[in-house]
Amino acid sequence: MTKNIFSDIPKLLSEEQFDTLLRSKSIKIERIISKGHASPKIGWYKQQQNEWVVVLKGSAIITIKDAEQITLEEGDYYHLPAYIEHKVSWTKPNIETIWLAVHY
Amino acid sequence: MTKNIFSDIPKLLSEEQFDTLLRSKSIKIERIISKGHASPKIGWYKQQQNEWVVVLKGSAIITIKDAEQITLEEGDYYHLPAYIEHKVSWTKPNIETIWLAVHY
Repeated sequence: MTKNIFSDIPKLLSEEQFDTLLRSKSIKIERIISKGHASPKIGWYKQQQNEWVVVLKGSAIITIKDAEQITLEEGDYYHLPAYIEHKVSWTKPNIETIWLAVHY
Repeated sequence: MTKNIFSDIPKLLSEEQFDTLLRSKSIKIERIISKGHASPKIGWYKQQQNEWVVVLKGSAIITIKDAEQITLEEGDYYHLPAYIEHKVSWTKPNIETIWLAVHY
């Protein structure tokens, strides 16, 4: 049975939502839904794995610590190497931003 | 610099087009553009790696050998385990079907 990445969007999103679509020994594919959220709330993400992200709907800004801000519109993709300190500093407030993230 | 998965779509697509967006030791992320193509032209795909696919635009039918046909519309995703014999038996003829595929 197929599933759809744009389905089952919750009406209320008090927090960002993370749904694991696939998990194997080597990778995790995740859907992330943001709606005006920035994350993490305090500090920075610093992950042990590389992460490739694409924004499928909405828009977002990723901030790299002590470096640039990257604006992502629909279809834009970006690579975050392991251990790079970063945060999602802004997502569109009025509509859902839907991300696909591949951790590897 | 960000790149966009919906950009740089060739006007003429005499063959299906495969663009590698990311390649590492463990995974390959690929954009596939089809426009009425079925593939492979003869026989079946039988890959050593697992493949996770999502249709981002357009629509397609995947046929699993001696088994089912799976219709994929925009946003639908599907998992093809390694060595499963399959083919893309149909894609929408009048517009581009854009796939994102993660091989792992």
